[in-house]
Amino acid sequence: MSDHIVFFSKSDIPQSWQTAFAKVRPGARFEVLSGAVTGPCDADFAVVWHPPHGELARMTKLKAIFSLGAGVDHVLGDPEFPSHVPLSRVVDPTLTAGMSEYVVLQVLALHRGLPGYIAAQRRGLWRPSAPKLARDVRVGIMGMGVLGRDAARKLAPFGYRLSGWSRSGFEEAGVECHRGADGLKAILRSTDILVCLLPLTAETRGILNRETLALLPAGAAILNAGRGAHIVDADLLAALDARHVSAAALDVFAEEPLPAPHRYWSHPGVIVTPHVASLTNADAVAARMSASMDRVNAGLPPFDLVDPARGY
Amino acid sequence: MSDHIVFFSKSDIPQSWQTAFAKVRPGARFEVLSGAVTGPCDADFAVVWHPPHGELARMTKLKAIFSLGAGVDHVLGDPEFPSHVPLSRVVDPTLTAGMSEYVVLQVLALHRGLPGYIAAQRRGLWRPSAPKLARDVRVGIMGMGVLGRDAARKLAPFGYRLSGWSRSGFEEAGVECHRGADGLKAILRSTDILVCLLPLTAETRGILNRETLALLPAGAAILNAGRGAHIVDADLLAALDARHVSAAALDVFAEEPLPAPHRYWSHPGVIVTPHVASLTNADAVAARMSASMDRVNAGLPPFDLVDPARGY
Repeated sequence: MSDHIVFFSKSDIPQSWQTAFAKVRPGARFEVLSGAVTGPCDADFAVVWHPPHGELARMTKLKAIFSLGAGVDHVLGDPEFPSHVPLSRVVDPTLTAGMSEYVVLQVLALHRGLPGYIAAQRRGLWRPSAPKLARDVRVGIMGMGVLGRDAARKLAPFGYRLSGWSRSGFEEAGVECHRGADGLKAILRSTDILVCLLPLTAETRGILNRETLALLPAGAAILNAGRGAHIVDADLLAALDARHVSAAALDVFAEEPLPAPHRYWSHPGVIVTPHVASLTNADAVAARMSASMDRVNAGLPPFDLVDPARGY
Repeated sequence: MSDHIVFFSKSDIPQSWQTAFAKVRPGARFEVLSGAVTGPCDADFAVVWHPPHGELARMTKLKAIFSLGAGVDHVLGDPEFPSHVPLSRVVDPTLTAGMSEYVVLQVLALHRGLPGYIAAQRRGLWRPSAPKLARDVRVGIMGMGVLGRDAARKLAPFGYRLSGWSRSGFEEAGVECHRGADGLKAILRSTDILVCLLPLTAETRGILNRETLALLPAGAAILNAGRGAHIVDADLLAALDARHVSAAALDVFAEEPLPAPHRYWSHPGVIVTPHVASLTNADAVAARMSASMDRVNAGLPPFDLVDPARGY
């Protein structure tokens, strides 16, 4: 176990990962990179979140790359991404549970009018309004992978009318299935609360734009816990200003941290959270990555292998 | 069905109730009272929310009184309340479901730090923080009647550690049972998120005060969807200011609407909602009340009968 692991993240705290790997892989050399390195690098494994472009290609002996999150757009967007190296992403029950907590929290918040009550509270206004019954609220989930299916299961006990959309279709009890381009139009036309949990790929970038938002029923609400780049921000802001979209709960943004002057911060219909829908639990994930490293050392693919062509 | 029904509410819209009763009890005379009446009144049934004191006593021919909500403190607090007349309260699946939506929404909000993110958003600050895992969060529910038990069942799938407290005890799978004065201390000492769904009685008035709040672990959060008078406001504000209580989601207040200068409106740790946790659905409830009126006319007690001595 004298593996050489390099670690790079622009948002995680290296210490907690160093500690976690020391427990599960005590023999490994754990090197924290703080920026672009110079010269070649003989690392066996790279554990990364938003590494500088070109950095992974310079590590010519890599046996596997591990994304520190469920999304892998941050590495596949690197023009020099070494696509012959197996890429693994986080598929962690803790991460899934955390995402479902966030989705249920914000679906309930949007259904029950919390953005309006927050805005009213700022102005000291007591303005009760009667909510719809859950059975009359149509929740549409874009992205029906592990996260989308678990969210649907956690939403079901409240009695919402659930539908889902994914590129290739899915089967999930109690959830109406939509797929492909026609299915996208169909789910948008019949959704009161739209939940985006899609992976970011060439096909899903900007998927929520002027044209697609216009298909939503008037007064629909948006929840984005996928990636900021799924939304064309100017188009969502225009739809919010026109009250066509009544409210939005946004956890992810094209640029993070969300820049100070951005209108999302101050829009009365928007709840901003700082990319906290689902945070990777270092101990649980380090254990899974270490098990994957054992597999790779034995000539097997790592767990939770990504298909770079598909993008997830 | 020539019953005479009088209706008084300081917050419900009479029109929707008039329409609802016209559907289920077309022969009845439906009289909307807008304030204190003078002289005797020959009504058979009174459907009320916060009627003026003394008003019900003046209706000497009343066969039953119907509270427009689950709580009956608004009538039992009347010194002239005619306690020989059967009193019925709203026990409605729609109301129960709505309350559980609100409880799960705010428990998730408190667990996931939403009050802090709302306060940060006002200031344009990006301040992510890692939440606890749900299995490490202890949720304690005060009041384990129909509402408390349903809320517990809706919270269970998230994996919270659940406990409950009621005067007389209860049995609910997966929920630790506390009862009586000693049980109150025990649940407060072991709760991270305290949910108040109690009825308001002489024994529960001011139950959350300096002494009881001090028993909570440091950093605990409060959710009140019971009655405003369950909380001694000055004591909760002091606990919030001292950060002993980290946050509070409050739907009910000693005075409603919450007066403009009240510190709850502006406190960064407080989410104020305008008594919307659970709103009575006129159609569903009018049908149930009408069925109760048939029972009373046949010499039977109404559904959902209250014990005035117990207070619920």
